Amino acid sequence: MMVSELGEFGLIDLLAEMVASSQDKRAASWQQLILGIGDDAAAWKGSASIQLATVDTLIQDVHFSLNTATWRELGWKALAVNLSDIAAMGGLPGYALVALSLPGHTPVEDVTELYRGMIELARQHGVAIVGGNVSSAPLVTITITVIGVTGRDGRLLTRSSARAGEQVAVTGQLGTAAAGLEMLTRRLRFDPETTACLRSAFFCPQPRIAEGRLLAAQGVKAAIDISDGLVSDLHHICRASLVGARINVDAVPIQPAVKASLGDKALQLALAGGEDYELLFTASAGVVERAQKLASCPVTVIGEIVPDKAGEVSLVDREGQPFTLPNSGWEHFAKPAATGQT
Amino acid sequence: MMVSELGEFGLIDLLAEMVASSQDKRAASWQQLILGIGDDAAAWKGSASIQLATVDTLIQDVHFSLNTATWRELGWKALAVNLSDIAAMGGLPGYALVALSLPGHTPVEDVTELYRGMIELARQHGVAIVGGNVSSAPLVTITITVIGVTGRDGRLLTRSSARAGEQVAVTGQLGTAAAGLEMLTRRLRFDPETTACLRSAFFCPQPRIAEGRLLAAQGVKAAIDISDGLVSDLHHICRASLVGARINVDAVPIQPAVKASLGDKALQLALAGGEDYELLFTASAGVVERAQKLASCPVTVIGEIVPDKAGEVSLVDREGQPFTLPNSGWEHFAKPAATGQT
Repeated sequence: MMVSELGEFGLIDLLAEMVASSQDKRAASWQQLILGIGDDAAAWKGSASIQLATVDTLIQDVHFSLNTATWRELGWKALAVNLSDIAAMGGLPGYALVALSLPGHTPVEDVTELYRGMIELARQHGVAIVGGNVSSAPLVTITITVIGVTGRDGRLLTRSSARAGEQVAVTGQLGTAAAGLEMLTRRLRFDPETTACLRSAFFCPQPRIAEGRLLAAQGVKAAIDISDGLVSDLHHICRASLVGARINVDAVPIQPAVKASLGDKALQLALAGGEDYELLFTASAGVVERAQKLASCPVTVIGEIVPDKAGEVSLVDREGQPFTLPNSGWEHFAKPAATGQT
Repeated sequence: MMVSELGEFGLIDLLAEMVASSQDKRAASWQQLILGIGDDAAAWKGSASIQLATVDTLIQDVHFSLNTATWRELGWKALAVNLSDIAAMGGLPGYALVALSLPGHTPVEDVTELYRGMIELARQHGVAIVGGNVSSAPLVTITITVIGVTGRDGRLLTRSSARAGEQVAVTGQLGTAAAGLEMLTRRLRFDPETTACLRSAFFCPQPRIAEGRLLAAQGVKAAIDISDGLVSDLHHICRASLVGARINVDAVPIQPAVKASLGDKALQLALAGGEDYELLFTASAGVVERAQKLASCPVTVIGEIVPDKAGEVSLVDREGQPFTLPNSGWEHFAKPAATGQT
């Protein structure tokens, strides 16, 4: 059945039912919920914690292609990029609103698959999907808003808190998602394990919620999630904090499978590819060391914050020689030649 | 200058500056704000009030045409439809997040005009624009999320609280916005005053925030805002409340200018046209009477809630004779023949 046969209200009823039956009664957000999908607005009990809110959009043939992504992967990713923003603030996500537009000839099963992907990730993080909007449109767009809170200590991770002398560190490994995109767009063929790993990194990133909270609790002040690319996102921190940064490119953690399959391009993807949704943060050596001990994922020091050259990110290799990067991260509206992706 | 020349980050800086300079320091939302546009998420001080959240999308050539709407009108309307949802809950809007997608060749001046329209309405209601997202896309889409709170009494207006024996009433007058759309799409010509009135009703509806709060405070329990059309939206209340409703079509308030310019079609537009963003509510006669005395706009009784025929809306004329409506409101994905708009 196509969406146009079911109709807007039939589709909303179906999705509301899927979401309601996915309810996790142990999650605080579900416990606080007063009204979910089906009224003019969602309603839940408030708290005195600091509130966080973020929104992000995935657009067909800009952020994804229906030729390569499954609907389930799209649902996961559309929510994941927003949860990642909450993670980058050191927060805990609570509620999601989903604005979906799609052509009337879209099969209903595709839309339910999209919601299955979203619901799966939402359940893992205790997020309640509480509202949204469905519109007809010539192409698919998925805009998700996530609302969350900080911990009771009210500690926030911001882009503007980096200080000279701090170390620059990242969670996990970089370049895997961009390698996945490279594999899909250039139709590269690897062994099944590598293929699955790269595809999953690109379509199903795991937002670093626990790590963001751990960093905030340990006293980290400055962080961002890596969506545009390491250099570009570090640039955001430097600009907001009025500091510079120096990265040792040889210290950037890259999966062996990415190096093996992409060769020399692996480093470029790790520096500028983006979409890894790892956390990039700055802190004193002692704080970073504590984070390394407590985190359940690798935490790697890749450089330092410097007082001069405010807003600038410089790259050096292990011998301290300048390293030049051909491309420097994703920017919407930028000419293809100046971006890592087009 | 085009958006592609300014670039994503240049555009975000420009919009952030516009929004920051529009800041109204007396508004509670601005006072509570910790982080606005420019970080991974917005942050503000929470409260124990009931939280409300809603999202709505306007899509080019589905909800609007750039041939008829100005960018400023679009900005106003995109925010207004969301504020209206908060009004329909009896709430007070606080924060807005704006996800915008548009072609790179869009003039920057168009985007700033869009924001001017949004900012103008936001200021009127003390709403802080605190975040968003800008993407390139082949067509313009504007998705706004608004987060608000109920009054301290925690009273909510919902779709599911209508009870048999209650009166059905509306704020303001109906059909004016649909008459505006009719004028634009059929290129009808009226005197300048009528033209301005109809255009403004369609593009610049005034969300009934004060009225929604007044209704909740006076003890109204059930309400919805009229976006799809009177009959369609009343149907939503009836379905959610498991009641029926009977409307006296001759009691439906219609502006004289709409009757004069659209003739017999005026009633049809008032019943099914939608987009008036007036409040439709149900309450006991005593409560409605108090609302009529206290509201600064007309409040008109147009029918009653009946116990039988759950989910059904019947129309009668002043003699009690059944009235048949050719079309019955806007539904996305529905075939044009079955909808009030296409």
